[in-house]
Amino acid sequence: MTITGQHLIAGEWSGNASQGFSATHAINNEQMEETFADATPAEIDLAIERANQAFKSYQQLSAPKRAKFLRNIGEEILALGDELINMACAETGLPVMRIQGERGRTIGQLGLFADLLESGEYQSVIDEADAERQPLPKPDTRLGYLPLGVVGVFAASNFPLAFSTAGGDTASALAAGCPVIMKAHAAHPGTAELVARAIAKAIQNCDIDPGVFSLLQGKNYAISSQIVTHPNIKAVGFTGSERVGMILQKQINERAEPIPFYGELGSVNPQFIMPGKLAKDAVEIAQALVASLMMGQGQFCTSPGIWAYIEESNSCDFESAASAAIAETQAGVMLTPAIAATYNRAVEQWQSLSGVELLAQGQAGVEHFGRAALFATDFTTFKATPILHEEVFGSCALIIRLKNLSEMVDFIGLLKGNLTASIHAVASDIEESKQVASLIAHKVGRLIYNQMPTGVEVCASMNHGGPFPASTDVRTTSVGSEAIKRFQRPICYQNMPDELLPALLRR
Amino acid sequence: MTITGQHLIAGEWSGNASQGFSATHAINNEQMEETFADATPAEIDLAIERANQAFKSYQQLSAPKRAKFLRNIGEEILALGDELINMACAETGLPVMRIQGERGRTIGQLGLFADLLESGEYQSVIDEADAERQPLPKPDTRLGYLPLGVVGVFAASNFPLAFSTAGGDTASALAAGCPVIMKAHAAHPGTAELVARAIAKAIQNCDIDPGVFSLLQGKNYAISSQIVTHPNIKAVGFTGSERVGMILQKQINERAEPIPFYGELGSVNPQFIMPGKLAKDAVEIAQALVASLMMGQGQFCTSPGIWAYIEESNSCDFESAASAAIAETQAGVMLTPAIAATYNRAVEQWQSLSGVELLAQGQAGVEHFGRAALFATDFTTFKATPILHEEVFGSCALIIRLKNLSEMVDFIGLLKGNLTASIHAVASDIEESKQVASLIAHKVGRLIYNQMPTGVEVCASMNHGGPFPASTDVRTTSVGSEAIKRFQRPICYQNMPDELLPALLRR
Repeated sequence: MTITGQHLIAGEWSGNASQGFSATHAINNEQMEETFADATPAEIDLAIERANQAFKSYQQLSAPKRAKFLRNIGEEILALGDELINMACAETGLPVMRIQGERGRTIGQLGLFADLLESGEYQSVIDEADAERQPLPKPDTRLGYLPLGVVGVFAASNFPLAFSTAGGDTASALAAGCPVIMKAHAAHPGTAELVARAIAKAIQNCDIDPGVFSLLQGKNYAISSQIVTHPNIKAVGFTGSERVGMILQKQINERAEPIPFYGELGSVNPQFIMPGKLAKDAVEIAQALVASLMMGQGQFCTSPGIWAYIEESNSCDFESAASAAIAETQAGVMLTPAIAATYNRAVEQWQSLSGVELLAQGQAGVEHFGRAALFATDFTTFKATPILHEEVFGSCALIIRLKNLSEMVDFIGLLKGNLTASIHAVASDIEESKQVASLIAHKVGRLIYNQMPTGVEVCASMNHGGPFPASTDVRTTSVGSEAIKRFQRPICYQNMPDELLPALLRR
Repeated sequence: MTITGQHLIAGEWSGNASQGFSATHAINNEQMEETFADATPAEIDLAIERANQAFKSYQQLSAPKRAKFLRNIGEEILALGDELINMACAETGLPVMRIQGERGRTIGQLGLFADLLESGEYQSVIDEADAERQPLPKPDTRLGYLPLGVVGVFAASNFPLAFSTAGGDTASALAAGCPVIMKAHAAHPGTAELVARAIAKAIQNCDIDPGVFSLLQGKNYAISSQIVTHPNIKAVGFTGSERVGMILQKQINERAEPIPFYGELGSVNPQFIMPGKLAKDAVEIAQALVASLMMGQGQFCTSPGIWAYIEESNSCDFESAASAAIAETQAGVMLTPAIAATYNRAVEQWQSLSGVELLAQGQAGVEHFGRAALFATDFTTFKATPILHEEVFGSCALIIRLKNLSEMVDFIGLLKGNLTASIHAVASDIEESKQVASLIAHKVGRLIYNQMPTGVEVCASMNHGGPFPASTDVRTTSVGSEAIKRFQRPICYQNMPDELLPALLRR
């Protein structure tokens, strides 16, 4: 299939791709041949207008029909075959196995929401009338949920499938009954176009108003600004850097009507290695942390960026095992040349910080590759050096050497919000672990015991979010079936006859 | 009991009341003798600091103990006896029966959350581990909820008990495990002090850290600003005007960390009288609407401010019955002289609008009383006159004469967000009602059939909120047990041993 480089606007491919931008081939670092259009203001307006029109019929679509649509998107993604895998690998540099796994997860997510929709009364609350109640009769009240309206979604650089075109936010918004305006990521526009074709086919197969999904290509910041400030956009999902996320948040704050902004912005995912664990498994835990750090070249949202332990006689074993494992790692391609440059600058900057020791580096690679780096520092330096509190996106980790539990407690107090934290412990660590758990719980969206933070289970009890800056809205998750709530809101129907009630709430 | 005029800060009464402000006796419009302190920056900081300290122990308090605390607050409010009723009546001008009823509702709300806490596993989702799953084992994941932290609550002028010191936001925040900083309303500071005494007693009775609740008195806007921008405030609840609400929203937008802002700002609560209903019950429905409008002198958030119908041969009956009922109403005291002045100015302004007809006024009263007013206009004038789209807080209603269903549909398109709307209809109106319901649903938080909007049932299926400006966050309710979610957020516990899990989530 030839890539058109165009936008998909309500079922039509349009836009002038010849004047546009190209993605970079991640591995050989050259511009790819396909060029992509930059969405114009008129194209953005048209996409949102058509989405708002489509909202009228799409919100009325029964839950089983919406479920069928979601499953069909998954089938059509699978039908894209190797072309999708090859394109995503070329654009992102992620290995084939990883992209295949991510495709499975993406289809699985669509299926999870389909299951939820088919399961029926997942949310309704009904309080029947009581005419005899004193002093006043009780009316019949039924709590249902309405979709918010058109949702703007921004694709993530690091998950070209699972957090992009047909990713989590698209799946949960469509499940909720909301049309989606998808802003493709400029790092993988070809992947976006292919997945958008799959969605367009599913829309045709299921006879749905094509306005329900539009894909906009572009590299121009004005596109994002126009989307998030449009009066007919009723919620925004974004996964990316704190810098860009806060620009969007500011623009959203200027709107006349406040809307939810679900930004996932950054996380250092602290790891706590408790004394008993360190005594028992220093080498194993060091190696496991390095393996987790190296997943996707450190470009996972849940990558373990900070490892905190209390210094003991065997601390050396931990650090030397971790250093040895880091030194053995190969340099790897990063998602984009810009991400690689930012990563390399950050590692260089850390090397110049006083009180921060470079313990080990991975093997060197070409310029647009990332090279793992392991640093160590103490509590005092960490406290005095705000830049160490920020996420470095890539395979760089910082060991924090703490004197005692009391310093670990103070260290937790310095942390900002995170997606996850892990406590690595054995039975003898239980009292200390309790204390750490009760404090770090307030800084994370997911608290893990003796497992690595990378890898997010897609299920009903998952929470992928967390206190700011992990997320701009700590009250919701971007992964798992609870994510449907991002794009719905409650409505109470009082004393309504069945004919006027949604099917789910009828007598 | 003598009113001290002071703040309650973490169990201590303090502040210089002699330099402060007085409330106005609503009925005789004279300054009351009690003077109240204006909270200083140091007092505000101290209250928030103590609340943040208390959060550590309060969030660990078991659900049954929190339930007991909530019930005890209700008992202590009841124990205040007539002093509370008399004070609230004097400060607000609301009649004794209404204040007694509101006290019952306030105690009922506290009990509702106590029931919820005692009912146990109301929110947990558990997905057990599956070591055999391919290609990867499934970890044990358990979804729980954590309180957000210290909550700032602003008391409402129109509900001195149910939306004030121990009102809905306080009850749901305390139920969720969050300490509360309550900013009393300057119109009923004595009522606030009395209720705060009841809370202080319950805190003592239940042996809870007194930092969990502070009451700050004041008339100075800087107090509100300091509360909502404080880094340790993690959510804000507010019920009041759109003007003040948007000032707070702007200040909250400037925070480094985004937090939820639950502002309930204004609502015209449109009423749709369908043709069959008009033909059958023109007089009855007119009288019922006037009765609903006159509740609390039109100062209910859910007061029916706009009545829309399609002109038919018997439209005259409806308008003349409504006019006659309005003309018979007595002028009534309003909550504050400022509210009365704003109301009277708005009615005067409407009288000067071209295309807007004054159908009837209630009987005249003294200057600080409100006098009911009924206006009528057509679709074209309504569309061209934005001021008619805004809530007039008080007993003023606007009839919209529509030519046909298509104009009713267009009229719905012009409406902003509302707390409620009612459809008044008979069986023959069903098709038109369906169309109206499907459209107006997206503009309201509660949709009612053949009942009046005033009176909000406090139950699990209630939703009191709505699209902006009814609420700044359409995703939550301020009334009913779902309100606890305003002050909680999800956390996933992965692979955690029982010792580290909250009681609710243990195996």
